[in-house]
Amino acid sequence: MLQRIRPRPEDQKHLNDVASSILSRIQSQADANGLELKAILVGSAARGTWLSEDNDLDIFLGIPIGSDLGKALELAKNVVLEYEEKYASHPYIHAKIDGFDVDLVPCYLVDSASKLKSAVDRTPFHTRYIVGKIAGLEEDVLLLKQFMKGIGVYGSELKVGGFSGYLTELLVLRFGSFPAVLQAAASWRPGETIDLESHSTLQHNDPLVVVDPVDPGRNVAAALTIDKMFQFVAASRCFLANPSIDFFFPARRQPISDEELQTILESRNSMPMLLDFQAPAVVEDVLFPQLHKAEESAKALLERGGFRTLRSDVCIYGERAGILLEMEVWKQSKVGKSYGPPVWEADHLSRFLAAHPQPLSGPYIENGRAVVDLPRSYVTAKELLAAEVQNLSLGRHLSIAIRSGHNIFVGPELFSIKDMDFRIFLAGYFEARAKMR
Amino acid sequence: MLQRIRPRPEDQKHLNDVASSILSRIQSQADANGLELKAILVGSAARGTWLSEDNDLDIFLGIPIGSDLGKALELAKNVVLEYEEKYASHPYIHAKIDGFDVDLVPCYLVDSASKLKSAVDRTPFHTRYIVGKIAGLEEDVLLLKQFMKGIGVYGSELKVGGFSGYLTELLVLRFGSFPAVLQAAASWRPGETIDLESHSTLQHNDPLVVVDPVDPGRNVAAALTIDKMFQFVAASRCFLANPSIDFFFPARRQPISDEELQTILESRNSMPMLLDFQAPAVVEDVLFPQLHKAEESAKALLERGGFRTLRSDVCIYGERAGILLEMEVWKQSKVGKSYGPPVWEADHLSRFLAAHPQPLSGPYIENGRAVVDLPRSYVTAKELLAAEVQNLSLGRHLSIAIRSGHNIFVGPELFSIKDMDFRIFLAGYFEARAKMR
Repeated sequence: MLQRIRPRPEDQKHLNDVASSILSRIQSQADANGLELKAILVGSAARGTWLSEDNDLDIFLGIPIGSDLGKALELAKNVVLEYEEKYASHPYIHAKIDGFDVDLVPCYLVDSASKLKSAVDRTPFHTRYIVGKIAGLEEDVLLLKQFMKGIGVYGSELKVGGFSGYLTELLVLRFGSFPAVLQAAASWRPGETIDLESHSTLQHNDPLVVVDPVDPGRNVAAALTIDKMFQFVAASRCFLANPSIDFFFPARRQPISDEELQTILESRNSMPMLLDFQAPAVVEDVLFPQLHKAEESAKALLERGGFRTLRSDVCIYGERAGILLEMEVWKQSKVGKSYGPPVWEADHLSRFLAAHPQPLSGPYIENGRAVVDLPRSYVTAKELLAAEVQNLSLGRHLSIAIRSGHNIFVGPELFSIKDMDFRIFLAGYFEARAKMR
Repeated sequence: MLQRIRPRPEDQKHLNDVASSILSRIQSQADANGLELKAILVGSAARGTWLSEDNDLDIFLGIPIGSDLGKALELAKNVVLEYEEKYASHPYIHAKIDGFDVDLVPCYLVDSASKLKSAVDRTPFHTRYIVGKIAGLEEDVLLLKQFMKGIGVYGSELKVGGFSGYLTELLVLRFGSFPAVLQAAASWRPGETIDLESHSTLQHNDPLVVVDPVDPGRNVAAALTIDKMFQFVAASRCFLANPSIDFFFPARRQPISDEELQTILESRNSMPMLLDFQAPAVVEDVLFPQLHKAEESAKALLERGGFRTLRSDVCIYGERAGILLEMEVWKQSKVGKSYGPPVWEADHLSRFLAAHPQPLSGPYIENGRAVVDLPRSYVTAKELLAAEVQNLSLGRHLSIAIRSGHNIFVGPELFSIKDMDFRIFLAGYFEARAKMR
C-alpha cells in the first residue's frame, strides 16, 4: 500500500531539487530588484506529506505588509516563462515546471496568523505548525489522504466539499495514527469538535469543527459538507470491519454505454432532464457554486410548478457544463386550480371573477374561497424549464452562458451526448454509491 | 313567481283535510288502546310555509316521558297500511298517503326544549315558536326557500349541508322580509351570529351561528357548511345587483353526452378515476358521511403515494354509489427515494443497509441520512388505489359494500357508464359553477 503512495527517495530528491531551484531563482530576482521578499515552500511538499501521484509545488512569495503584491506577482511572472494567471483571494501564477504543477502565490508576511490580510497569508503558519510536529507521522497522513481520495471525500475545493490536506494532518496529529483517526471518526456525530490547542474563541455551526491551531477563531473544516463528513464516517466504520485495498484504490469508473443507459432508464422509468450550455471560462471554485445555485433555483422553479425532482447534480464535460435534474413527476393535467379571494371580500371577488370570464370550471367555493379551474401554461417539466430558464436566479457567469445558448435534453435524448466525461458522470450519478458496506 | 311556489287555496284545503284525517285516526287509535298520546302536525305544513311542489306532512306522536316509544311506533304502523320503517335518532314511519309523503315520528312531550330526550322532541317547540310569529311573512319564507333551492343550498341533510326550513323561517323573522335577508347576507363573514332571543349560552365555532330561540345552547345553522353559506352570500349579492327568475328556477341540468365528455376530457387532460360500488341500503344521512369519509381517505392515500388530486366528489346513481377523484398527477417514476437513518446511528444504519441489499442507486448520503433509490410498488394512481382500497378508513356500510365488489373506471372508461343520474352528476362536477355572477 505505502509503496504505491509514498514518494520514492529519488522522487523526493527530484522535488527538493526543483523546489530549491525555483526558490533560489525567485530570491535572486528579488535581491536583484531590491525587493524585500521571502520565498517559502508551503503545502504538502514542504511537510513531507505529499502523495507520489501528486506533483504540486506551492511556493509563497512573502512581502512586508504595506508592500505591493502586484510587484511580487510581476516578479513571479519573470521567473517562469510560461504561466497562467489565476485568482483566489488575489491573483497568483500557475506554471508547469519540470513535471510539477507550481503555484506562485504572493502574500503578506504577518507576525501572527490572527493578523492576516488575506486567507493565503495563513498558509505559511500552517506549514510551520505541521512541520514542527508531524515527524514520524508522515506515512499516516499519506494513508489518510489516499483513503479519503479513494472514497471521494478528499479536497476542500467547492466542487468536492471534502477534507483539506491540512485537515488530514491535524486529524493525524490529534489521534496519533491513520487507524486511530478512522476509529475516532467511526463514532462522530454532527457538531464534533476538535481543538488541539484548546484555544477556540468562536462558536461554529458546522458539522465538524477543527479549530485552527494557528488561528483560534477559524474552523479548518468549514468547507466540509455534512454529507462528505459522514461519507468518511461510514467508510471508516466499514474499513475497520473489513479492511481492503479497494477503499484506497477503487475500480476506475467506466463511462456508461448506450446499452447500460437504456437498461437504467427503463428500470428507473423517471425523466432525466439535462440543461446543457457552454462552461464559462472561470475556475471550478467560481463555477461550481454557480452551478449549484442554478441547480437549486431550477428545482425550486419545478417544485413551484407542481413537478417533483428525485435527485439532481451538476457536471462539467469538455467545454460544456450541465445541470442534471431527474424528475419523478414530470407531467400533470392541463387543468389546474386557481384560488381567488374569500367570498366575503366582495371587491376582491369581483376583480377575480372579472379576470376569469371563461374558466374550464367554476367559479366554485372551497373553504370559503372562490376557485376556478383554468388551463395551465405548462403541462410538462421540460416546457416549464424551457420557458423560465432565463428567469432562474443565476450567478453572473452562468447567466451569460445560459443566455447565449443552451439545450435541454430529456430522457432518451441523453443518448446523443457521447462525451466520455459526461458518460462517466452519468454512470456515477446512477450508481450514487457511497462506501458504507 | 309567488303563483308558482305558493300553494293554491284548494291545495291548502286538501293538505288540511289529509292532515286532519291522519291526526284523528291516530288520536282515536290511541284512545281505543288507552295510550296517552298527542298527535301534532309539525314542519312547514303546520306553519303555512310549504312550497306547493313539496308534499310533506310531518306528524309527531308525542307521549309522556317514561312511556314506551315502541308502542307509539306500533300504533303508527296500525294507522297506515303500507309503510317503510326509517331511522333518525330513533325509528319512525314513512308512508305515502293521498299523494303526500308522511312521516310519523314518535317523540316525548317535554316541558321545555332544554329538557328534551332526543333531537326530534325539539320539533314541536320550533313549530309553536314559528306559528306564533310568522303570520304575514309566509310568502317571504317561500321566496327564500325557493331561492335557496334554486342556487343549491336548501336542505340541512348531510348530502347538502345547507339551510334547514326552520333556519329560513328564523332568518325571515330576524330581518323582516326576503329581500332584507339577502341584503344582510350580502355582507356576512365567517362567524356571523344571530340571536333572536338574546339568550345564547354557548360559544359555537360554526361559520354561521343562529341561536335556537327555543334552546339557548343550540346553533340552528350547525349543519351549514362554510361553502354553502357563502354560496348563499355570493348569490344574494348577485341577485340584488341583477334580480332574475333564474335564481329561483335555474335551467335543469342535462346529462353529459359522450361528445361533451370527450371534449371536456381533452381540454382538461386530467385523469378522472371513479371508484364505483353497490350503494348500501341506508338513508342518505348515513350514506353521505361515509362516502365523504372514504373520499378523504382515498385522497390522503393518493397524496401519501405522491399523486395529487385536483378535485373530488361523491355521488349516488341508481343502485350504485361512486367516489370521483380527478387527478392532476397520476403517474410518477418507477424509481423512488427511500430514506434511512442518520449515518451516525450505526445500528439503525446497519439494519437499513441489510434491508436493501440491491437498490437501484445508493446507498448515498443526503443531509447526513442514508438514502437508497428503490423501485416503487405503484407507478400510477389507479394501481395504488386498486391495491389499497380495502385498507381505506371506511364507515361500516361502505366497508362491506366495497369489499363485496367494486370497479375503478379511469379516464375514457367513464364512457361505459350510461346511467343518466351519473351523467347529470358528471355534468355538474365539470361545470362546478356557483351562482356568483
